[in-house]
Amino acid sequence: MWSLKTIPLFLYSNYYVINSEFISPLQQGSILHLSKAITLVESTLMSHRSEAIALLKEIMPNTGKSIRIGISGVPGAGKSTFIDTFGKLLADCKYKIAILAIDPSSTIHKGSIMGDKTRMEQISNLENVYIRPSPTGAQLGGVQRATRESILLCEAAGFDIIIVETVGVGQNETTVKQLTDVFLLIGISGAGDELQGVKRGIMEIADIIAINKNDGDNMNSVMKTSEQIKSALHHFPISENGWIPRVVSCSALENKNIDDVWNIIQEYISHQKLNNSFEKKRNDQNRHWFEDGWKQLLVDQFFSSNKNKITSFLQSVLEGNMTLVEGIERVLNLNK
Amino acid sequence: MWSLKTIPLFLYSNYYVINSEFISPLQQGSILHLSKAITLVESTLMSHRSEAIALLKEIMPNTGKSIRIGISGVPGAGKSTFIDTFGKLLADCKYKIAILAIDPSSTIHKGSIMGDKTRMEQISNLENVYIRPSPTGAQLGGVQRATRESILLCEAAGFDIIIVETVGVGQNETTVKQLTDVFLLIGISGAGDELQGVKRGIMEIADIIAINKNDGDNMNSVMKTSEQIKSALHHFPISENGWIPRVVSCSALENKNIDDVWNIIQEYISHQKLNNSFEKKRNDQNRHWFEDGWKQLLVDQFFSSNKNKITSFLQSVLEGNMTLVEGIERVLNLNK
Repeated sequence: MWSLKTIPLFLYSNYYVINSEFISPLQQGSILHLSKAITLVESTLMSHRSEAIALLKEIMPNTGKSIRIGISGVPGAGKSTFIDTFGKLLADCKYKIAILAIDPSSTIHKGSIMGDKTRMEQISNLENVYIRPSPTGAQLGGVQRATRESILLCEAAGFDIIIVETVGVGQNETTVKQLTDVFLLIGISGAGDELQGVKRGIMEIADIIAINKNDGDNMNSVMKTSEQIKSALHHFPISENGWIPRVVSCSALENKNIDDVWNIIQEYISHQKLNNSFEKKRNDQNRHWFEDGWKQLLVDQFFSSNKNKITSFLQSVLEGNMTLVEGIERVLNLNK
Repeated sequence: MWSLKTIPLFLYSNYYVINSEFISPLQQGSILHLSKAITLVESTLMSHRSEAIALLKEIMPNTGKSIRIGISGVPGAGKSTFIDTFGKLLADCKYKIAILAIDPSSTIHKGSIMGDKTRMEQISNLENVYIRPSPTGAQLGGVQRATRESILLCEAAGFDIIIVETVGVGQNETTVKQLTDVFLLIGISGAGDELQGVKRGIMEIADIIAINKNDGDNMNSVMKTSEQIKSALHHFPISENGWIPRVVSCSALENKNIDDVWNIIQEYISHQKLNNSFEKKRNDQNRHWFEDGWKQLLVDQFFSSNKNKITSFLQSVLEGNMTLVEGIERVLNLNK
């Protein structure tokens, strides 16, 4: 491990020098090198992208061995508290846990909602837990790519369990589903809006639904909500891999039934491995990542080489001197 | 207008021959030519794409003059009935109305939910109403592009009002918002889930919220819901163009207050034109379409030229003979 005294100078600079001297401590689990590497894959600068690809190429053989867990839920469902208690349980079992947040800036409200380390008091200072807030200001596509690459980096650094956390607003869940092996939805009970956070779109993709805040005056309400969701799930088609989504109530605050959630996650992983759907899912994800990956890079490289011309065509379109379709055609002609 | 007897043979064939003989009847409002042109822009075949661009280039000067209205709402809110009654009102005012549906196949359930002409009995046989179901089996990006091009084609064919209908599932609304001048959300009242369909994400982008089914035993409940939504809207930031979203109750079934909705739409258009935000919004949309347009075409052209190699790299990745990152790098090297 690097101590503060021995950090090489380049780690402080804006330049990344990815070489075997960098990769070796990363693979030995240096948090400093991991963080630096994640910052690199988050960058959208073309020169950083080339370095990121070189780095990823090196570490790829050491990836894929973790359990990747997606966690989502409406704001207020207690995701941070859940992850705090859940993470503590896993850390006590001697697992190394990385927690990554996905939180693309909303199209309307800019800025990050999550990634607040201070809300995870039990785990934020543990040596075998790594918490990484979401990249800010980025778009969903960029965040998705950065997150999938960050998962690989965490795996290369020896993390056993990767948690990808997102706020429940509809489209993020599909992204997280494409990045993980298990999708866990944190639900809550409430006055009249029991199904709000578990609306059809999200329920359909949840493998496990944990109704949180099963404590104090809230317990009757949680029981009722659990029953409602269980009965709603009956109307959904069984998923391709034969798993019937499980509903469990828990209290992250009182550390109640959190071990149940972990047991169900392990049961689901076994279920998938036994019927070969685990590998199939990862293959489907790889296919998606492959296609998404080359398309994004192709566009980024093209834009980077033709930035001035593309910008001036756009200007002409906006000023009404060129039709939209002609502008697009002119951009494509740059490729000829 | 073409009668069935005079339809040129090429309209029956799989080949598109877009020339001045095609464009002239399209611009005179021939539904047959319009439908054929929309089928062309819906196609993802590269040869069709080139023809589509040539066609769009020709008609662009005749576009942009319609009012583009986005309509969304949860399944069961009565969107089809609303559009039926609303469309009839507009048709009686001698407007030409085109209704386009956006319904990208859900990631889980394939197939189209909407575009059912038979559910719009009042308008489906009117001469000045054109109903076009959603392209099936396509992805959101493709549907979005096809729809924006279809809007332009409808405008070139002389339609005054374009309605873009989508089912309310979160991400579709953002798409429709980017395609239209006014975003109308059809809400309903119900037992305990009043806010389900108008959850924060969608409410934030609605310009007008019409609570439908204000009829029979339902009227008290609709009034209550309207009040709840009005009071919820107070907590939202005022939109950039200074418009405060309007809530109105109506009954499409009993043709009650549908004219109110139309009045508010016109008021909102005037509001935008008076403070120049109408032009600004269309400019922002053009910027989005421009960027989206060249990126999609670049990727499509590249894939079309390198299909076999890209497919074989993917195969190697899936079979574990090549890492994902190396596969992506190999694809990009094809461009050098």
